Amino acid sequence: MRKKVVLAADLGGTNLRMAAVDSDGGLLYRTGTATPRADDHQDLLSAIERLAVECRDTISSELDVEAFGIAAAGVIDFEHGTIRSAPNMPELNGLDLSTELTAKIGLPVTVENDATAAAIGEHWLGASRGFASSIMVMLGTGVGGGIILNDVPLRGIDGTAGEIGHICVEPLGAPCGCGSVGCVEQYSSATAVTRMAFELLKAFPDSSLKETAELTPLDVFSAGKSGDKLAIEVFRRMGSYLGIALADLINVLNPEVIVVGGGAAAAWDLFIGDLQSEVTKRAFRQPAERAKIIRAELGDDAGILGAARLAFMNLPGIRGQF
Amino acid sequence: MRKKVVLAADLGGTNLRMAAVDSDGGLLYRTGTATPRADDHQDLLSAIERLAVECRDTISSELDVEAFGIAAAGVIDFEHGTIRSAPNMPELNGLDLSTELTAKIGLPVTVENDATAAAIGEHWLGASRGFASSIMVMLGTGVGGGIILNDVPLRGIDGTAGEIGHICVEPLGAPCGCGSVGCVEQYSSATAVTRMAFELLKAFPDSSLKETAELTPLDVFSAGKSGDKLAIEVFRRMGSYLGIALADLINVLNPEVIVVGGGAAAAWDLFIGDLQSEVTKRAFRQPAERAKIIRAELGDDAGILGAARLAFMNLPGIRGQF
Repeated sequence: MRKKVVLAADLGGTNLRMAAVDSDGGLLYRTGTATPRADDHQDLLSAIERLAVECRDTISSELDVEAFGIAAAGVIDFEHGTIRSAPNMPELNGLDLSTELTAKIGLPVTVENDATAAAIGEHWLGASRGFASSIMVMLGTGVGGGIILNDVPLRGIDGTAGEIGHICVEPLGAPCGCGSVGCVEQYSSATAVTRMAFELLKAFPDSSLKETAELTPLDVFSAGKSGDKLAIEVFRRMGSYLGIALADLINVLNPEVIVVGGGAAAAWDLFIGDLQSEVTKRAFRQPAERAKIIRAELGDDAGILGAARLAFMNLPGIRGQF
Repeated sequence: MRKKVVLAADLGGTNLRMAAVDSDGGLLYRTGTATPRADDHQDLLSAIERLAVECRDTISSELDVEAFGIAAAGVIDFEHGTIRSAPNMPELNGLDLSTELTAKIGLPVTVENDATAAAIGEHWLGASRGFASSIMVMLGTGVGGGIILNDVPLRGIDGTAGEIGHICVEPLGAPCGCGSVGCVEQYSSATAVTRMAFELLKAFPDSSLKETAELTPLDVFSAGKSGDKLAIEVFRRMGSYLGIALADLINVLNPEVIVVGGGAAAAWDLFIGDLQSEVTKRAFRQPAERAKIIRAELGDDAGILGAARLAFMNLPGIRGQF
C-alpha cells in the first residue's frame, strides 16, 4: 500500500512555511517563502501553489499526496475553510481559502487558526499527547492560545475561542492592541518583556540594560540569564501575570496539561517559578495540582503538524473526529 | 404507554428539595426539608429516601418513576456518581451517593454539581434553550458557574470545571474564601454587595444605609432601587467586575449566551449597564456581540430540572448524550 502524505502550511504575516508530512508526523520535505503581501490575495495563492508543487515534485513519487492543511493567523471558519478576519493580513478578510486553494492544487483543504493548530500538533505528537484536555499558550509577539477539551479543539461559535492572551490580569493596566487594558498579553508576551524593561530602567540604574531604541526581548533574556536584577524583575512579572491568567483557566476549565510555547518560552527558567507559585496561590488546589504546566516540544513545527493532522482527519473515513 | 417520570433533588447546605418531574419538565409534585447535618451521612440518605417515598406515593399510580437525579453543592465525579468534596457539607466528602441511594430507593441515580445542573436545566427549558454553547452564572452567597459547550456540559478531568466565581478581576484585591485574592466572587456575589456597602459608608455620609450588623444584600438592593447613591455605586462595581470576568470568558470560550441567575440577579437593572459596557470595552467585538447576556428563567428550579434532565438521559437508550 502506498504511504499517505499530506501537505501542510503555516501562514503568518511574515513567513509562509510548508512541509510534506506523513501519517506518523514525519516531515519529509520543508520549504517556505516570505508571505506575499498585496492588496489582493492572488500573490499569496500563487505562492502557496508554487510551494505545493515544489513539495510534490521533491518527495518520492511512491507517495500519494492526499490533502492539504493550512494554519493561518486569524479568525477561521473551520467548517467552511474561510478566513473570517486576519488582523495582521487584512487583505485576507473573508477569503474562501479552501475553495480557492482546492481549485489551484486539486486537493481537499482544511483551514485552522494557527494557535489551535499548534495545540492540535502538540496533542498529536508533542507535549500534550495522551491528554484529552489541554491548553496551548503561545508566547510570541502577542500571547496566543489553543484549547482542546475531551480531545476536541474548542473553536467557538464564531471561531474566536481560545484568546487567552486577552484575559484581564490588571483591570486598569497597560493598553492593549485589542482595545482593552490590562490583558495578559501586555505582561507576558515578548513585546511586553521589552516594554516592561523600559519602564523599569530608572528604578534599576545599575542594570546592564540601557535605554536604546534597539533593546530587544532577547537582550532582556540574555541580561536575565547573567543575573541582571532589572531583567530578573521583568521575567518575574511576566511569570506572575501569566500565572494569574492560567489560574483563571485552571479554575474554569480544569485541564490536564498547559503547554507553553512560542519564542518567549525560551525564558522558561526565569519565569516558571513565579508563574507556578501564582497558580498555586490562586487556583483551587485539586485542579492546580492536576494541571501540569510544561514546555512545548514541537517548536515552530507545531502549527504545521496540527494542520497536517487536520488534513489527515479530513480524508474519507476519518473526517469528524476533530 | 405509561408516562415516564423521574425524581430530582437539589441538595444544598441548608435545604434539600425534591420534585417528581415528567419528560417535558413538568413539576408534578414538590417537597423538601432542611438538609440534615450530622457527622455521618445516614440522616441525609434517610431524608432523601423519605422524600422519594413521599413523591412516589403522591403522584398518580399511572406514572412510572424510572430514575433519580440529584444536584449537589460540591465537586462531583459525574461518571461514578460520587461526591469528591463538598466544602459546605464536609461530612459528605467521598460519599458514593449513587450506590448508596440506588440501594435505598431502587432507582438508577445520577449525581451532578449544582451549578452545572442549573446550566443544564436552563439549557433544557430556560433562557439558554436552543443554544449549543452557554455559560450559567449564579450570583448567590458566592458566584457559581456551569458551562455547556457544543451541547455537552464541561465538567473537567476532576469535576472542578466552571468555577467562574474565582476568575481574578483585581490581582491585589479582597481576600477570598478559596485562598486567593481578588476573585470576582468578592465583588459580584450577594455577600460582596454587603461588604462593598460597608466599605463605602464613610464615603457616602448621606446614604440611607447605616452601619448596622443587620445590613443585608436586600437592604442595599432596596436602597439602590430608591436611588441611594452609595447603593448605586455598589451595584455599579458589582456589574463592572462581573463584566471583566465575563469578557475573559467571552474571549476564551466564544459562547452564544451567558445566563445570569441566583438571588443577586434580582438587582439586574442596577448592574447590567456597567456589566455590559465593561464587556463591550474589554472583549473582542465579534464574540462580544454574539454573546447574549440574559437573565435566567427557571429560578430555584434550574438545578432540579437539570438533575431531572440528566436522570432522563441516564435511562436505557438515551445514555451518553450528556
